Amino acid sequence: MKQAQQEMLDWHGTGMSVMEMSHRGPEYTSIAEQAEADLRDLMGISDDYAVLFLQGGASLQFPMIPMNLLRGKKQADYFNTGAWSTKAITEAQRFCDVNVVSDSTPNHFTTIADTKDWSLNSNAAYVHYTPNETIHGLEFADIPEVNGVPLVADLSSTILSRPIDVSKFGMIYAGAQKNIGPAGLCIVIIRKDLMGDVLPGTPTMLNYQTHADNGSMFNTPATYSWYLAGLVFAWLKKQGGLEAMATINQRKADKLYSAIDTSDFYANPVDLRYRSWMNVPFTLADSSLDKLFLQKAAQQQLLTLKGHRDLGGMRASIYNAMPEEGVDALIAFMKEFERQHG
Amino acid sequence: MKQAQQEMLDWHGTGMSVMEMSHRGPEYTSIAEQAEADLRDLMGISDDYAVLFLQGGASLQFPMIPMNLLRGKKQADYFNTGAWSTKAITEAQRFCDVNVVSDSTPNHFTTIADTKDWSLNSNAAYVHYTPNETIHGLEFADIPEVNGVPLVADLSSTILSRPIDVSKFGMIYAGAQKNIGPAGLCIVIIRKDLMGDVLPGTPTMLNYQTHADNGSMFNTPATYSWYLAGLVFAWLKKQGGLEAMATINQRKADKLYSAIDTSDFYANPVDLRYRSWMNVPFTLADSSLDKLFLQKAAQQQLLTLKGHRDLGGMRASIYNAMPEEGVDALIAFMKEFERQHG
Repeated sequence: MKQAQQEMLDWHGTGMSVMEMSHRGPEYTSIAEQAEADLRDLMGISDDYAVLFLQGGASLQFPMIPMNLLRGKKQADYFNTGAWSTKAITEAQRFCDVNVVSDSTPNHFTTIADTKDWSLNSNAAYVHYTPNETIHGLEFADIPEVNGVPLVADLSSTILSRPIDVSKFGMIYAGAQKNIGPAGLCIVIIRKDLMGDVLPGTPTMLNYQTHADNGSMFNTPATYSWYLAGLVFAWLKKQGGLEAMATINQRKADKLYSAIDTSDFYANPVDLRYRSWMNVPFTLADSSLDKLFLQKAAQQQLLTLKGHRDLGGMRASIYNAMPEEGVDALIAFMKEFERQHG
Repeated sequence: MKQAQQEMLDWHGTGMSVMEMSHRGPEYTSIAEQAEADLRDLMGISDDYAVLFLQGGASLQFPMIPMNLLRGKKQADYFNTGAWSTKAITEAQRFCDVNVVSDSTPNHFTTIADTKDWSLNSNAAYVHYTPNETIHGLEFADIPEVNGVPLVADLSSTILSRPIDVSKFGMIYAGAQKNIGPAGLCIVIIRKDLMGDVLPGTPTMLNYQTHADNGSMFNTPATYSWYLAGLVFAWLKKQGGLEAMATINQRKADKLYSAIDTSDFYANPVDLRYRSWMNVPFTLADSSLDKLFLQKAAQQQLLTLKGHRDLGGMRASIYNAMPEEGVDALIAFMKEFERQHG
């Protein structure tokens, strides 16, 4: 962020802000290409995949996925593990028959069914899942084995938090606002052989091939967000890449869950096997203290801890950008609050 | 830009960057609401219209317009006055019968047919036009009279450059990257009674009603771009609003065209009645000097003057952000270049 601030009015002595550059000029092209190269390097993305820098967030991917990936088929498989899965399913149902492979609704999105209880459909055009549910804090421990059907993952909240084997996926997408950069950018990593056969009536802008053929510059992209994402990629490489981030992120999550589990005052309802590294929802034993908890936390610069409006309580989002010291400070605050009010 | 730079790491003492805020938190809500209020004030937008802050650029509007505005009809009217009109038409043809009201292709987009030669269709669901064509520098002098059919305008390159009577339009849209702010934001101003009746198969994200019902926060919007747009709106109000900008912009354009027209070395082919205030394409008498012209201009910090790849030559884009002194400097440079090489 400091680098972005310094470069804001004059990028590398050009006399221009990144915001003022033509997206087709040599300066911006170098920024865009470096960002893609760094992301490919960080995630180990092979040339079999296109990397697209799009707009519209993950929510625009919900219709784009069936429009692009049904490829003549009529059915798709979806896991339902939380609010975001449900949204993806609702939108896909406008375009195809959705088979729900496993449904965590009955357990209030606190656990995921065992593999043996999944109902995978061999005629599905693809299998969609949400590796991490940001609202409920429910996360797949492993990449699902789906018998060769293209696997599609909404990686918005876990991308770049740890290494991932991209070759196991048909497509990965991620809204940038969690682990990448500012809102308004959506990254799509898609196997090239899956593109090009869209549903009739698909707008040109919703066809992945359009963007792949034009280096994500069919129209003006979200240039400044793309630039900021590039700064994050470069920063991650300097930190030691995704292995190093995984070590830190796992330690952050372990500490916070441990603080919750060893207390009678705080609670998290999620199955130990499927707890999110990124989003830790928790409740206070007495919910009438919620407001006071948030007020006192804010006084210590512990911000945006209010739980999602669908769930209430608290939620600590501990993405890459949250340093370990931030988690330590939260835990210390929680202990002190419990001592005073528990 | 300087204000954005100062506020980048800590917005108004909150300890947060705008990029780090929850888009549903009170801090960001105040930014978003103020931006909309200032835009409504600047443009005189009544409560009969929704103002939406979307993503995807004008190019995503090209399919959204027929998907949302056909409302049971099968035909739409389009003016063809340049590259952007043509793109809008090509996309609309996927969804309806397009009647071209007047076509400037035969005159190489250098003039617009007289009103008496327009073929308006009374069964059209709407009439679409591009008030200013950025590549060819061709601009409508007045708002077309279309006999009560909803008028839709791609105002990307002229929005906020002068006052406009919004009540004459069914819908206005504008990609932000010309006169508003950074790329990645698209503003839509739409009459409320025109929303809600979309084509079957329209994705939820491409339905204007979705965004109107959710204050443009159905999903995470391009928060930072929206904030920067708000800074621009506040800045425009301080400059004296759109009347003041119109005075400056007209003077800038008049000066530059005058410099071109009084020279035998530079030329602009557009009909005097339809010359753009914003984009001034011009050619040198000897195109082999183009490269030298661009090099020498860059040495004087006169940047991004290269003409669009479809047209060649030069193009001076003199949007709101270009001060009058910038145009004066360009004219002085052009005279000196002509003296040396003409």
